[in-house]
Amino acid sequence: MTAPELALVLVGFGHVGRRFVRLLDEVAERLDFEWRVVAISTRRHGSVVDADGVDVDRARSLVESGQPLGRLDSEPRERSGLDVIRQVARLLPDEAAEGRLVLVESTILDIDRGEPALSHVRAALEAQMHVVTVNKGPAAFAYDELESLAEAVDREFYFEGAVMDGVPVFNLVREAMPVVRVDGFRGVINTTSNFVLSALEQGQPLDQAVREMQARGIAEADPSLDIDGWDAAAKTAALVNVLMGGSMTPHQVQRTGISEVRAGDVKAALASGRRIRLVARASRHDGSLTASVEPELLTADDPLAGLADTENALYLTTDLLGEIGIVQRSGDLTQTAYALLSDISRISLRLRDWTER
Amino acid sequence: MTAPELALVLVGFGHVGRRFVRLLDEVAERLDFEWRVVAISTRRHGSVVDADGVDVDRARSLVESGQPLGRLDSEPRERSGLDVIRQVARLLPDEAAEGRLVLVESTILDIDRGEPALSHVRAALEAQMHVVTVNKGPAAFAYDELESLAEAVDREFYFEGAVMDGVPVFNLVREAMPVVRVDGFRGVINTTSNFVLSALEQGQPLDQAVREMQARGIAEADPSLDIDGWDAAAKTAALVNVLMGGSMTPHQVQRTGISEVRAGDVKAALASGRRIRLVARASRHDGSLTASVEPELLTADDPLAGLADTENALYLTTDLLGEIGIVQRSGDLTQTAYALLSDISRISLRLRDWTER
Repeated sequence: MTAPELALVLVGFGHVGRRFVRLLDEVAERLDFEWRVVAISTRRHGSVVDADGVDVDRARSLVESGQPLGRLDSEPRERSGLDVIRQVARLLPDEAAEGRLVLVESTILDIDRGEPALSHVRAALEAQMHVVTVNKGPAAFAYDELESLAEAVDREFYFEGAVMDGVPVFNLVREAMPVVRVDGFRGVINTTSNFVLSALEQGQPLDQAVREMQARGIAEADPSLDIDGWDAAAKTAALVNVLMGGSMTPHQVQRTGISEVRAGDVKAALASGRRIRLVARASRHDGSLTASVEPELLTADDPLAGLADTENALYLTTDLLGEIGIVQRSGDLTQTAYALLSDISRISLRLRDWTER
Repeated sequence: MTAPELALVLVGFGHVGRRFVRLLDEVAERLDFEWRVVAISTRRHGSVVDADGVDVDRARSLVESGQPLGRLDSEPRERSGLDVIRQVARLLPDEAAEGRLVLVESTILDIDRGEPALSHVRAALEAQMHVVTVNKGPAAFAYDELESLAEAVDREFYFEGAVMDGVPVFNLVREAMPVVRVDGFRGVINTTSNFVLSALEQGQPLDQAVREMQARGIAEADPSLDIDGWDAAAKTAALVNVLMGGSMTPHQVQRTGISEVRAGDVKAALASGRRIRLVARASRHDGSLTASVEPELLTADDPLAGLADTENALYLTTDLLGEIGIVQRSGDLTQTAYALLSDISRISLRLRDWTER
């Protein structure tokens, strides 16, 4: 079998995007596809398009030293992520038609509307690109529309990294649990909140814990998305839409963050053998779906109670397998970057199946 | 797409086999394949072969009332599981050539040699059948040989039910964690031992706990396979062989069961906030693999310590995803039967891909 040759369009080139291209190099001998980066678009460092392949090492150096990517472009210009996606589609019509163009999306989420990721995904699918994204927005705000569009153009739309980094959640259910119906879930899926609650248990102040998460690249510059429960609500909506056939936005998830949780509450809970955790949950009753994110007081024997620091877990309630859990013991940039890699690997598998026919 | 029509050969028709055929009926409208049972072979109730389809409801009634299956056969005769497999292959050469014959294996394991399952799997693959089994023996004793044979004849050999019932372990890694390397694991994977240890914590005697597990169809008639750690050792060997590229039998797993664990030890551990659990583990050092099953004293914050009663969990150490866990909160016959169903669903998916070409 010949390894498919993929042309990657990187929209977003922050910590995750840059770790992703390094990871591709690190595990190159294990990959079942060949790849080149044909475009990189950033919010603050401009963009570069080169159908023959961008020098990715130089692109990383430029961004990391605060210089514009346009230096690598033969015709540098101002253009948005959407412009870059459309330009690549025009430049590489054969790759587009053969399904060898892949948008790799890792921009920062606007929680109000799921943008700009949502528009990037839509434009890429319309241009016959496959899409992989670590962004929660598209699946949280418009899963039905985007999945239908992907089917109509016969391309893939994957987003494993939207929840629990590269730990398989969506692919677990889709690929490894056929026929099973998911009736609900409970989980701890916001790392920053869990780290903060663990820190409060140990007597550390909240703002110090948040700063540590920011320094590790896990919390956003604006930590309110985490602390107010928005990040967990977006993930919850994505899970409801994809795993339970829902049609929900983050705004429809009942939401209470941890900003009202006091250090005294956390310590009192601990003293009585219990824990406060930010719990995301959803359930189906009489055909309708409800979802919430809120701090809960958990007894010691609750599997979510034992999750400390950067641990995440999701427990699915199913009809044929009872309750099953998937647990992430620690998270870092490599795992987020791996999410993109695993999604691309699935696309590559499909292309190999095609070429065998 | 046309749903593939599968002809199933059931070798073993005990609790699991009978639950499996009922489950197929219960979820019929969700399946992407059609099926008929063309043969059933049992150890104590004879066998039946009918290329047009066995009346499965009557077969269940006969076995459950202690009567021989030969009553359903136009030419009843004495024959082994191997005889039945070979007879079906002769009767249905077109189905065999088209990859529509599936051996559904659920016999009882002989821990010394992995028989009779191993011979059943080998014979079925040689006869161009796909194989699905809940049996640990084949993957624990001869994974390399059988996987090579399956590749040579272009058929599938699946065994998701060998560990943690239908909760995906093998398919999780194979389908949802591409490129990732598994460097080791730790798990609680023998339900009877965990139930007994939990019962001892609550002051219940060992033999009473074992009888309860037997009544629920979870412990074997001969509980020594569970109590002496053989069941966990067989699962450990299967995990090492499949997930870590090993070539080990259960006899090469360092093994200590729970028969030496005293109620006093369990209670003393509990009094100091700890737990004794039967832990299966494996690791890779300098290219060589070691594996063990033994009771371990775990601190309260160990994710395996919190597993009570019939809970199972497996934590994988990986290079790209750190440590990730899959947890089964409870197990029953439906979940074991589902393992067979999910494996067949994968085969059906492959057949659909073929017919689309």
